[in-house]
Amino acid sequence: MSSNSDHHIRVEHTDGVATIRFTRPSKHNAASGQLLLETLEALYRLESDDSVGAIVLTGEGAVFSAGFDLEEVPMGPASEIQSHFRLKALYYHAVIHMLARIEKPTLAAINGPAVGGGLGMSLACDLAVCTDRATFLPAWMSIGIANDASSSFYLPRIVGYRRAMEWLLTNRTLAADEAYEWGVVNRVFSEADFQSRVDEIARQLAAAPTHLQGLVKNRIQEGSSEALESCTEHEVQNVIASVGHPHFAERLAMFRSKEMRSSALAVDLDAVCGGQ
Amino acid sequence: MSSNSDHHIRVEHTDGVATIRFTRPSKHNAASGQLLLETLEALYRLESDDSVGAIVLTGEGAVFSAGFDLEEVPMGPASEIQSHFRLKALYYHAVIHMLARIEKPTLAAINGPAVGGGLGMSLACDLAVCTDRATFLPAWMSIGIANDASSSFYLPRIVGYRRAMEWLLTNRTLAADEAYEWGVVNRVFSEADFQSRVDEIARQLAAAPTHLQGLVKNRIQEGSSEALESCTEHEVQNVIASVGHPHFAERLAMFRSKEMRSSALAVDLDAVCGGQ
Amino acid sequence: MSSNSDHHIRVEHTDGVATIRFTRPSKHNAASGQLLLETLEALYRLESDDSVGAIVLTGEGAVFSAGFDLEEVPMGPASEIQSHFRLKALYYHAVIHMLARIEKPTLAAINGPAVGGGLGMSLACDLAVCTDRATFLPAWMSIGIANDASSSFYLPRIVGYRRAMEWLLTNRTLAADEAYEWGVVNRVFSEADFQSRVDEIARQLAAAPTHLQGLVKNRIQEGSSEALESCTEHEVQNVIASVGHPHFAERLAMFRSKEMRSSALAVDLDAVCGGQ
Repeated sequence: MSSNSDHHIRVEHTDGVATIRFTRPSKHNAASGQLLLETLEALYRLESDDSVGAIVLTGEGAVFSAGFDLEEVPMGPASEIQSHFRLKALYYHAVIHMLARIEKPTLAAINGPAVGGGLGMSLACDLAVCTDRATFLPAWMSIGIANDASSSFYLPRIVGYRRAMEWLLTNRTLAADEAYEWGVVNRVFSEADFQSRVDEIARQLAAAPTHLQGLVKNRIQEGSSEALESCTEHEVQNVIASVGHPHFAERLAMFRSKEMRSSALAVDLDAVCGGQ
Repeated sequence: MSSNSDHHIRVEHTDGVATIRFTRPSKHNAASGQLLLETLEALYRLESDDSVGAIVLTGEGAVFSAGFDLEEVPMGPASEIQSHFRLKALYYHAVIHMLARIEKPTLAAINGPAVGGGLGMSLACDLAVCTDRATFLPAWMSIGIANDASSSFYLPRIVGYRRAMEWLLTNRTLAADEAYEWGVVNRVFSEADFQSRVDEIARQLAAAPTHLQGLVKNRIQEGSSEALESCTEHEVQNVIASVGHPHFAERLAMFRSKEMRSSALAVDLDAVCGGQ
Repeated sequence: MSSNSDHHIRVEHTDGVATIRFTRPSKHNAASGQLLLETLEALYRLESDDSVGAIVLTGEGAVFSAGFDLEEVPMGPASEIQSHFRLKALYYHAVIHMLARIEKPTLAAINGPAVGGGLGMSLACDLAVCTDRATFLPAWMSIGIANDASSSFYLPRIVGYRRAMEWLLTNRTLAADEAYEWGVVNRVFSEADFQSRVDEIARQLAAAPTHLQGLVKNRIQEGSSEALESCTEHEVQNVIASVGHPHFAERLAMFRSKEMRSSALAVDLDAVCGGQ
């Protein structure tokens, strides 16, 4: 435990799920340089760890993440402050790129307020669920910093152009139910159910075919800005890869013996399950 | 009738509307290579047939289309299976490109479940209506194949990024009313009204100015991924073309004689009409 | 007043807000060449006027704007008509590009029907509010002209691909509440409250940090069609610029003295306020 206190995140492994937990509750899980580098290194390790089929991002305590840690901003002149942000933004966006590009599903388990870069990190996960006391706040406009953390990529694609502009220009706080209505999260769970639901969803994500999940991630990511015929060309390349995978041979055999149901759920976001 | 049984689709012409009907109900209208090539050839013919002003895509029997016909997958080694899918995907996407690019409106009349590539084909039509017993299922994740059939182009643009990811990763079946809520279809009709509504909408689509419909199709298609100033440049080119068309001279004369109403409906999706 | 009657717009300045008002109510504020050039010149002036922090676009009388002024179309042959539209579309799109690109927030205050190019202009503003008697009509399909005025850029990004296609192909008129539901406007106000709400929102927009608003505008605009890593690279450049701005030094000092709240609203779209 004492050695753990030197770290800003904790990585837990259960049932094929790796959970990256921000462990700075006294700082509202603000993203220090150390937190970002530790998260980045964890993602690099998890990428090549075949025992891991899904990655959960969550925060310890009452807050998901307050975003950039402003306490680390140096006291010096503007040029020094700019250098600080240049490096911190590099780390921040490296984490976000990995969340989006890693060929395993990522799930934001939003345990409380997601603010600024914390909101951005949650947007960059493939799926997001939250407790009913989570809130969502852009914050950039009030802090005096240009919006970043991939908000300009994800917001127009998730909430639409008009609402993206509205949200960033007004800096309104969205409650959990509004965030669901706008599509910012896939599900809202009660505080009591939250952890068991997250565990169950993550377990199912980990059990589903990882290579296909990686292809889905890549296609939606790229396809959202591609021309139609580029999309389908890349889809074909993925199809060829997937039907050459041993997994497909198994599924085809099941199809031929009438054991395969194409409507089988890969993941059930709505299953009511007991605590684990 | 007996010769018809050799075909996997049937093309019907009424009131300027061409209906392409998948005629493999015993196979859930799964897309065989033959079905795809016949559909492609039909679209090529319809493209240059000036008597046709709208194209309806629908299925015979209880299912719209089950997508790729897995029964055609060869029994051989992976390389042979890959070659099979490479060719089938080429046909599939050629059909989808034509549905999207043909300069006439296309309407998916979804008479029942739309699964995998069947869902993809319905997304690629300009408009989609369904019966209240239609269902919508990605299926790829459970069958073991990477998502294709333009799902990575249309889903983020139609249901948004978060829901696109959710749908493909979970493989949930959407009922007709959910599909409407997510924007997957433009209207849901009762089983009793379905055919007469489809006929009426298609008839109105066919009666509206085809050259303008073709320009709208192209603009929304391209504009969804273009920069603002590229969009408006292409819009100008279309405006110049459209005001040089004899149709505009007629409309302008009507405007000058106060006979033109800019609010005149081109197509009424909600008109209650008798059977035809 | 008499000299004013020679102009097709009027520009008013109050509390840091510049209001561009179309003043052709007898012509339903149709966009004459003169109206477009006057609007363009006004936007050029406002761009470099440091006393202006927000720009409102609205119409005098019962209509927001009927779009292109068809009365100006010459009586000559098609080639002459095409030249007319080429020039008018150049002006129209120059106005739209400025509304989108000017580094100050733009607010469409939609006082009544927004038709064709009038709808397009409202889409190109960063935010849009309307009275409950506003209506929204594409009109192009019924007038016989290809859709323009940036509708092919904004509609798929604001209402989604399916609804964009539906709206342009059917030419249906949306009432204010439907327009809100589809995301075409950010808020609907009663006729009685409309002007005071517009004034209050515009005043708040003008009071918020203009340089950050300009960066948000640019990022959502570009980000909606960019790849993820291009987005974040451009975000970093903006972050560096913003933390080098004197405004950030002030905010940072407030943060250090615990006076800054990251949840402070920049603009409150929902505040009930008295008339001004």
